[in-house]
Amino acid sequence: MNTRSFSQWMSDIQQRTETALDHALPAAAIAPARLHEAMRYAVLGGGKRVRPLLVHAAGQLTGASPERLDRVACALEMIHAYSLVHDDMPCMDDDTLRRGKPTVHVQYDDATALLVGDALQTLAFLHLSDAPVSDDPLRQIAMIRQLALASGSRGMAGGQAIDLASVGAQLSLAELEFMHIHKTGALIRASIGLGVQCGRSLSEEETASLDHVGKVIGLLFQVVDDILDAEADTATLGKTAGKDAANDKPTYVSLLGVVRARELAEEMCQDALDRLAPFGDAARRLSELTRFIVRRQF
Amino acid sequence: MNTRSFSQWMSDIQQRTETALDHALPAAAIAPARLHEAMRYAVLGGGKRVRPLLVHAAGQLTGASPERLDRVACALEMIHAYSLVHDDMPCMDDDTLRRGKPTVHVQYDDATALLVGDALQTLAFLHLSDAPVSDDPLRQIAMIRQLALASGSRGMAGGQAIDLASVGAQLSLAELEFMHIHKTGALIRASIGLGVQCGRSLSEEETASLDHVGKVIGLLFQVVDDILDAEADTATLGKTAGKDAANDKPTYVSLLGVVRARELAEEMCQDALDRLAPFGDAARRLSELTRFIVRRQF
Repeated sequence: MNTRSFSQWMSDIQQRTETALDHALPAAAIAPARLHEAMRYAVLGGGKRVRPLLVHAAGQLTGASPERLDRVACALEMIHAYSLVHDDMPCMDDDTLRRGKPTVHVQYDDATALLVGDALQTLAFLHLSDAPVSDDPLRQIAMIRQLALASGSRGMAGGQAIDLASVGAQLSLAELEFMHIHKTGALIRASIGLGVQCGRSLSEEETASLDHVGKVIGLLFQVVDDILDAEADTATLGKTAGKDAANDKPTYVSLLGVVRARELAEEMCQDALDRLAPFGDAARRLSELTRFIVRRQF
Repeated sequence: MNTRSFSQWMSDIQQRTETALDHALPAAAIAPARLHEAMRYAVLGGGKRVRPLLVHAAGQLTGASPERLDRVACALEMIHAYSLVHDDMPCMDDDTLRRGKPTVHVQYDDATALLVGDALQTLAFLHLSDAPVSDDPLRQIAMIRQLALASGSRGMAGGQAIDLASVGAQLSLAELEFMHIHKTGALIRASIGLGVQCGRSLSEEETASLDHVGKVIGLLFQVVDDILDAEADTATLGKTAGKDAANDKPTYVSLLGVVRARELAEEMCQDALDRLAPFGDAARRLSELTRFIVRRQF
């Protein structure tokens, strides 16, 4: 495996995502200017762009065009950014730091943060319906539907609601997993599913296998997040560290301890890699990205 | 004109909308139960259902099927309901009464209200992509796009941002109109546009004419709302009356006075009716509804 070329690929995707988002967001000069400026503040100039990386890596499995993958990646990143803006608000996690910058409600105000999140979610659906992302319009409709399912009350927003209800509660590992499958997992799973669908059709078996990979990577991502939150300091993380423990939130680390959580991450990573192996070289970026997610330090 | 039959039609549409929304919303028993219960609380059992009425009235112009119109009507009503839940929150209008009931953040809590609004917006896009609303999938994608445009930063959410910025400010009539074209007008205009598109295709001229009607009814609705807010009492309105003046918000009444605002409403109504006349009997419900909107007392 050529690590140098993977990090180059990653940086290329991050850069083209930044450019695509810059074009997709309304210019700050367009009225209402303050809202548009705040939307750009929330989305641009930061973030690991994990969902766009997954979209592009998954798109390689079906030979999807980079332009279509950019469109899907932007829609997912807008949903992700909206959820961060709302999660950081005083009535939710009340966080002041995100990606090394003041959160939107701190930089602007609560009302603006509320509207920024609302408008970013709408923009995701506008963007996904604004140009073809598949040769088949029926598949495009199904993709819009899939983004909505992954984001809504039975996906990401639902996971957030379960998370709220779980503060200070004693969760079992199964309950913790249920929460994360929704809160973080649904959108990560959709990133792979939507990226794949930008290209040629796959067999039912292949689709099911990649959906399993998406589910595993979604959970894996959260396990690693919990480990990093427990171990890293605020400067490395670019957001407030140790806040899960401070907020008395259950995590994989609080349930399993760091050592077992690390083992679990490695097992999940291997499960995903095994599923990707039959796809051969077309799965190269997605395999590399899976390994990277487990070993990342931020 | 048979008034009795119009009020019967209106009550039929309101009833079938209630049933359609009841089916479209996740059951309160489905996890996360508290979120789903609160979403149902926000949407069901109240509201004038103006947007669904407009959808169904407009759909008669193109012979659209009632089932498709229900689907479009539900999507619009979900967007409308989400905007009310978020607008009522403490960081926005801080209102405690809506449709004669405590607002969502009062009945539940701020975090739940935030998530309810978020998830209702998502559900609107899920619902509009979940089954055909046109024979042509490309048109369905365009309809999803139109809903997003009307709801986002250059539509409803943008109007909300302009409204926030205008509190205590001296607006001209043109600026007030610009705000309302976005805040309330965009979604009302989209109700007519989307209802029409559920049926047979119209000529470019007919489409443009109906879009003008949508724009006029959107403003008209706000002019009447301002008059009612200035004149009615809280019990009749089912929401806090006189709050615009209390919040020092510019309105048509504060700019023009009640008499001139009433005249303006009548002029706009006539403009819309003139545009609808060439459509003959197919425009009957939309004409009746336009007159009703001007004369309503709540």
